[in-house]
Amino acid sequence: CGLPTLASSASSVGSGSDDEDGGSRPNPRDTVQRNSKGFSDFRVKKIDQHQFGRKEIELAEQEMGGVMTLRKKAAADQPLAGARILVCIHINAQTAVFIETLIAAALAEAGIPIFAWKGEDDQDFWWCIDQCIETENWTANLILDDGGDATNRMSKQFPALFRQLRGIVEESIPGVHRLYQMCSREPGAPSLLPCPAINLCDSVVKPRFDTYYAAREGIIAGLRHTTDVMLAGKYACICGYGNVGKGCAQALSRMCSIVVVTEVDPICALQACMDGFQVRKLDDIIKTIDILVTCTGNKNVVTLKHFERMKSGCIVCNMGHSNTEIDVSVLQDKRLTWERVRNTVDHIIFPDGRRIVLLAEGRLINMSCISFPSVVVSVTSCTEALALIELWLFSKEKEEHEKRVKASGGDFGEKFSDRYKKDVYLLPKKMDEYVASLHLPTYGAHLTELTDDQARYLGVSKAGPFKPHNYKY
Amino acid sequence: CGLPTLASSASSVGSGSDDEDGGSRPNPRDTVQRNSKGFSDFRVKKIDQHQFGRKEIELAEQEMGGVMTLRKKAAADQPLAGARILVCIHINAQTAVFIETLIAAALAEAGIPIFAWKGEDDQDFWWCIDQCIETENWTANLILDDGGDATNRMSKQFPALFRQLRGIVEESIPGVHRLYQMCSREPGAPSLLPCPAINLCDSVVKPRFDTYYAAREGIIAGLRHTTDVMLAGKYACICGYGNVGKGCAQALSRMCSIVVVTEVDPICALQACMDGFQVRKLDDIIKTIDILVTCTGNKNVVTLKHFERMKSGCIVCNMGHSNTEIDVSVLQDKRLTWERVRNTVDHIIFPDGRRIVLLAEGRLINMSCISFPSVVVSVTSCTEALALIELWLFSKEKEEHEKRVKASGGDFGEKFSDRYKKDVYLLPKKMDEYVASLHLPTYGAHLTELTDDQARYLGVSKAGPFKPHNYKY
Amino acid sequence: CGLPTLASSASSVGSGSDDEDGGSRPNPRDTVQRNSKGFSDFRVKKIDQHQFGRKEIELAEQEMGGVMTLRKKAAADQPLAGARILVCIHINAQTAVFIETLIAAALAEAGIPIFAWKGEDDQDFWWCIDQCIETENWTANLILDDGGDATNRMSKQFPALFRQLRGIVEESIPGVHRLYQMCSREPGAPSLLPCPAINLCDSVVKPRFDTYYAAREGIIAGLRHTTDVMLAGKYACICGYGNVGKGCAQALSRMCSIVVVTEVDPICALQACMDGFQVRKLDDIIKTIDILVTCTGNKNVVTLKHFERMKSGCIVCNMGHSNTEIDVSVLQDKRLTWERVRNTVDHIIFPDGRRIVLLAEGRLINMSCISFPSVVVSVTSCTEALALIELWLFSKEKEEHEKRVKASGGDFGEKFSDRYKKDVYLLPKKMDEYVASLHLPTYGAHLTELTDDQARYLGVSKAGPFKPHNYKY
Amino acid sequence: CGLPTLASSASSVGSGSDDEDGGSRPNPRDTVQRNSKGFSDFRVKKIDQHQFGRKEIELAEQEMGGVMTLRKKAAADQPLAGARILVCIHINAQTAVFIETLIAAALAEAGIPIFAWKGEDDQDFWWCIDQCIETENWTANLILDDGGDATNRMSKQFPALFRQLRGIVEESIPGVHRLYQMCSREPGAPSLLPCPAINLCDSVVKPRFDTYYAAREGIIAGLRHTTDVMLAGKYACICGYGNVGKGCAQALSRMCSIVVVTEVDPICALQACMDGFQVRKLDDIIKTIDILVTCTGNKNVVTLKHFERMKSGCIVCNMGHSNTEIDVSVLQDKRLTWERVRNTVDHIIFPDGRRIVLLAEGRLINMSCISFPSVVVSVTSCTEALALIELWLFSKEKEEHEKRVKASGGDFGEKFSDRYKKDVYLLPKKMDEYVASLHLPTYGAHLTELTDDQARYLGVSKAGPFKPHNYKY
Repeated sequence: CGLPTLASSASSVGSGSDDEDGGSRPNPRDTVQRNSKGFSDFRVKKIDQHQFGRKEIELAEQEMGGVMTLRKKAAADQPLAGARILVCIHINAQTAVFIETLIAAALAEAGIPIFAWKGEDDQDFWWCIDQCIETENWTANLILDDGGDATNRMSKQFPALFRQLRGIVEESIPGVHRLYQMCSREPGAPSLLPCPAINLCDSVVKPRFDTYYAAREGIIAGLRHTTDVMLAGKYACICGYGNVGKGCAQALSRMCSIVVVTEVDPICALQACMDGFQVRKLDDIIKTIDILVTCTGNKNVVTLKHFERMKSGCIVCNMGHSNTEIDVSVLQDKRLTWERVRNTVDHIIFPDGRRIVLLAEGRLINMSCISFPSVVVSVTSCTEALALIELWLFSKEKEEHEKRVKASGGDFGEKFSDRYKKDVYLLPKKMDEYVASLHLPTYGAHLTELTDDQARYLGVSKAGPFKPHNYKY
Repeated sequence: CGLPTLASSASSVGSGSDDEDGGSRPNPRDTVQRNSKGFSDFRVKKIDQHQFGRKEIELAEQEMGGVMTLRKKAAADQPLAGARILVCIHINAQTAVFIETLIAAALAEAGIPIFAWKGEDDQDFWWCIDQCIETENWTANLILDDGGDATNRMSKQFPALFRQLRGIVEESIPGVHRLYQMCSREPGAPSLLPCPAINLCDSVVKPRFDTYYAAREGIIAGLRHTTDVMLAGKYACICGYGNVGKGCAQALSRMCSIVVVTEVDPICALQACMDGFQVRKLDDIIKTIDILVTCTGNKNVVTLKHFERMKSGCIVCNMGHSNTEIDVSVLQDKRLTWERVRNTVDHIIFPDGRRIVLLAEGRLINMSCISFPSVVVSVTSCTEALALIELWLFSKEKEEHEKRVKASGGDFGEKFSDRYKKDVYLLPKKMDEYVASLHLPTYGAHLTELTDDQARYLGVSKAGPFKPHNYKY
Repeated sequence: CGLPTLASSASSVGSGSDDEDGGSRPNPRDTVQRNSKGFSDFRVKKIDQHQFGRKEIELAEQEMGGVMTLRKKAAADQPLAGARILVCIHINAQTAVFIETLIAAALAEAGIPIFAWKGEDDQDFWWCIDQCIETENWTANLILDDGGDATNRMSKQFPALFRQLRGIVEESIPGVHRLYQMCSREPGAPSLLPCPAINLCDSVVKPRFDTYYAAREGIIAGLRHTTDVMLAGKYACICGYGNVGKGCAQALSRMCSIVVVTEVDPICALQACMDGFQVRKLDDIIKTIDILVTCTGNKNVVTLKHFERMKSGCIVCNMGHSNTEIDVSVLQDKRLTWERVRNTVDHIIFPDGRRIVLLAEGRLINMSCISFPSVVVSVTSCTEALALIELWLFSKEKEEHEKRVKASGGDFGEKFSDRYKKDVYLLPKKMDEYVASLHLPTYGAHLTELTDDQARYLGVSKAGPFKPHNYKY
Repeated sequence: CGLPTLASSASSVGSGSDDEDGGSRPNPRDTVQRNSKGFSDFRVKKIDQHQFGRKEIELAEQEMGGVMTLRKKAAADQPLAGARILVCIHINAQTAVFIETLIAAALAEAGIPIFAWKGEDDQDFWWCIDQCIETENWTANLILDDGGDATNRMSKQFPALFRQLRGIVEESIPGVHRLYQMCSREPGAPSLLPCPAINLCDSVVKPRFDTYYAAREGIIAGLRHTTDVMLAGKYACICGYGNVGKGCAQALSRMCSIVVVTEVDPICALQACMDGFQVRKLDDIIKTIDILVTCTGNKNVVTLKHFERMKSGCIVCNMGHSNTEIDVSVLQDKRLTWERVRNTVDHIIFPDGRRIVLLAEGRLINMSCISFPSVVVSVTSCTEALALIELWLFSKEKEEHEKRVKASGGDFGEKFSDRYKKDVYLLPKKMDEYVASLHLPTYGAHLTELTDDQARYLGVSKAGPFKPHNYKY
């Protein structure tokens, strides 16, 4: 049967699952767990909290109109019937909604093998992945990966299983980078990929939601969860004016903060100007800043020389990439006093009495302090599901074509578009449009339809895709 | 000595003091408490948590630049020396900063009698007030009141003490209303007030901060603390376009919600139009609303007929006045299921499966779910302190004048402006300007000074006040 | 018959009547003019352009929904029948719509005496007013004044006529100031006013439209009519954060300019902070400014020391009060070259090659370069008309009451509220609400009605007024 | 010598050159013109107005900081020395600044052949192009084209001259489309292009300026130049949410209009939702609209059925593509009365009295009623100049390489990157970044520089390019 399998590469995040009880429970690796139906092919932290989890899942479903619509459609069509999907993503209430959607699409029943818990260490993490790869009587034919870890592990440690894959869907920048390296080698050398892969980073809808829109909401939510500071009138410095920085700057400016931007790239800097923001060097303005937000994707953007000149009360936080942007190591100095004033909020007190308010110890506040809005996860999930379906349907179509060719003793002229090789592809624009259209009802939006005459005039199909390949939305 | 006394008319609010342990502790009325110095003239909930409280107070001080500046000035001048102030306001970390400022202004030392705890019932409330009025060896000569309760209690139950008052400062609309009733009776009848009173409701700076600015920040904070919903693209209905409604509408619109306003007053309705909002009747749009916020000051604004037609997932909350705006009583129906999904968040599930998301059971979300920004409290505190100082200094000035008159055996022509009778007064504009100027350094603002020539041209003093009495800021 | 009479205290303004032919026509004072029906009791510039004027009036009517509704109602009720109104306001297409409304309200017919033309000098101006006061067979019983000139002229030069007045409506700050001086003298001294007067400056709706809303639209319109400069990214300095400054700052900020504010008043300065604007001194930032807008109501806000340090290309304009704000006199220097580059746009070229772009020679750009939006004039006109009607109806009511008292030989106990003495009054709040409600249909706004229960709860009438007197909208 | 030549494919536009004198002057084709130096190789409308033109050019230079900086650099380096450029673009004061920059870059002197005038008919247009192609003693080696007309004419009518071209720079979508058709034919067929071409449509900076930013400023400017209508509170419908629609919606919403969007593309529709706009069908909302703006690039978006249901006073205008969006033909109906109320503003009066306010007869209002902001033209000009320089320098480099190869009797191993074939290329990202950096000083923007360590971490050069190829700014 077509049971998707799941391994999480990370612990659950978000406000619903605040977990402070630390070392008291045994490591899930060491205990066989069993759900109420006797199913035991999983390991999580607190199986006894499944009711709370179920409530969070129901809450999330309320907000995830797009993925719920897709689920209904998928339950009727079962486009993933036969697929065996190795899923290696962050687990929370919202991605759980997604998992259940994949199952609906495969008419799968009963338990889902799931290996994930909060506070996994590195060994736990790889152990979980291996459990998924080596599940008894089951081998994955599709991978959904976020970071390339499952793909990488399988290609290195389980090459025979890797060769049987029918498709890989990857959503992270480093994961995609690795895929391109595997297929585009020196001229003539064969691709190291066993199957086609889809790059979701450079799709249209998903990245806009999980960077710009998520940042625009997330910076406010993050500051609201950690501080009572009034945003109006505050000087906020946004380091980096990429998509995350654009969202943060827009949100803070609209909450009446005075926003200044730092940038290294002249194009982004000019965009900041056109959007009404001053562009300055951090060194030149550090003394006036009340709120400092990093979103450069770079490292050591905020360093000792900045901390030394900040105003007392300056809030410092990171919306960018991992935990490299703020050089927190320089604050681990015995002349400085750390005072934890709230969960995820530290005051670092300097010898001269100045207090720096550091959020989430320099880690991503939108991960540490808040949940992603459900609609963002809905968009991501739909994109992932459609990419999996696209590769799966193609692989079945190709398989059948090859069967018929073999049966007829050679190429008998059947028309078959071999559109996916062992290469990396962008999501077809039509699917991006479909993801968008799945979410329009949530907003009460009514699309206009082209008339035949208009479609002819524009040279497009009435059903889309509506824009040329390079179109900048 | 000039020790101000304090009774809180309400429990402490805000995020820092989440108190869920309910009935386990005894009622503070029944136990004599004692602080580390042996002082016992107070009753609070958890004297053992004083360190946490001190940390919250320090956090608040960071943000309350205005009141801290005033405190420094007051500590030097001691304008309240000799004053005995009965303070009847909400207690939290931020108002504690204010109390300490009053003390600085009076050069008072040591313990402050304080009677307040979270979860006071009506009896507890009046008991606390009475403790303050009847403190041994101490009688109030000034009242700072919020709601008129202390004033009312004293005038009814302790008329002799009431007659000794030198000034009353009141900040609530109903409290002010009662004061006006006490002094403006039929022509010829004497005022029932024993002393002048200052109405802070109709001052300039404070109400703008604690309605418009507080609402603009508070609605977002409230929604962020209770739900993960993305605000962008959501239909939000703001019932009432007074100062709170204006703040809510502005904030949600700036977070990219689509805002519709309901109004009964054509002037406010026209303002909503000019600010770019549709004005509709709730009945006509209820089916499309995702977020419904009441801020009318009225009752039964949201009723059964609205609940019955809401979309599933509609968030309903109150930013207005007390708990009357949303008729929650109609939801106490056995056909409906209440499900508490988070702290202060209930799902009310209708027979047809629709879920209404009710926040704070219809009470004020900016009280229930979040703290007021410290700067709002700073503005309020400075205004209150200046009003107290104004009345106290006048009463001392008058007292000394009368002494000299008496000593000289009659009116000897000393110039004395008897500017405050037993009436209700607005805050002098100069003090409003002073409150504002105390908070400008927080924002790095630099005032321009008038030249002599310009001041002459405008017909104002270079030190202010700068505007005519009726000026609409 | 009840023919309103009109004298304009100023030339017509606005885009429709660009008049450059200067000295070629004779002064209207020197020629008797005659319209197509033979009526000659008027003097305007170009009677031959009446068709163009009529088209502009029709255009204005499209936009002036409020006043057109009032006109229909007035034509049915004729509340001004019998009134003889001396109107002394700026004349343009939009105020012409207003004049025709007054006539509708008085069932007047045929020609309206009108004395006004573009380019009146001082002598012309007073000559026009005198023509209106001394019209043969006609004496005014109401004055509608803007600046107090007609009132002042009449009180000084025509005291007998002045004493016959039934009401004065004044809309300017200096005019109102003079009225208050006339009635509130030393205790016991009688009012110098012959009748009640209404102060429209401090009404609610009108001032908000003709300062804040008009400025918000006008600053953009003014800059768009005179320059091609992109507003996004430009540093704009708004001198003065009163209602006009608030409108200008809001508009430029929303067009993505970076806005800095200068202020002398700490309250307005703090409002600027809360609205997200930096507050600085002009001296400190003059070198970085691209667009400089004065709206202080003060004089010499921009002086030589500023001109000398401006960037080349800096645009300097005035949205404030008269032409005093920018000290243009210092630019009349032979070392500087003036170059008129467009209508109302001068380049002043400094010896070092820098060009200052001065708009409208420092006069108000919203008067010189653009028209007021018709809806602003509609609000003003309705307010004026209702104030005139209020005073006129009261005077007729009082007259009839007095007749009956006289007829009955003494006070026979008829109930009559002598609510208007020889004093200055604010517009009744109910009329302000009515003006607002007249304009709601333009915006498709639907008012909610209070239920009986709600009205009782709030203590207001279901028909309004809805707010206490001091309410700050 | 390296004299660039110019032919304009269109008449000059913009506010500075309002030209109403119609038929009185002879067609420039029929008269030899001569400038003050005796140069006669040009044909324009009014050579006698050259002083006015020169003033407009100086005004434009003030605003075009980017192109002026480039001009200085080019005057020193002369990167275009030897180039003979056929320029086929719209002519106005701002593009004249650009032309003078090309000359600076080529060290050219004296007169520029220019053939363009306002009101060219089709025959005039082609005549002008032919004059440029067939100039005596001169053949173009570069083309800068907008619409592909010069390229197309040359390839068809002057194939021998066409084969000598060294580079083509094209900035329009249809022009680029034609270039792609010429080079990407069936496999194996040779390119029909004689040289490399650069596609500027899909560059980064230029399209953002001349669609989104230009629309955001232009819609307001266009409405302000034609009507006095207050934008606040008005219902505005934006048809099409591409880059132009995004700019229009943003601008009108920020001026407090209530904006509704129509879309056919679900991705753009979802963006509109996320930006806070309702998405509806025009048919469903037409009755409520006050301002209707088309920017779809499509045809017949507004048709008879819409006109018949519009409110009286509805303003209809086009910001999109050519004049197809509004089906104006249906208004050419004898039952309807057209009334020209201002320049470019018509009232179309329906039998029921309703007036539709049509701007620019349905043509682009940002072309008909206003000028492009100079900074937009500066960005475009810099982009064009850099593209021309890129192709010209490459062609010289290649020429010299081939000379040396030939001289050495065969390939002697000289390293030469033959990076441009007879194909169509995107602008190198580095040049896009350079265009941006040229315009930063205008905005007082200060770029941050990467440290060596940071550059290494990001894997980019400290001098850029900073982003991967597919990056969505």
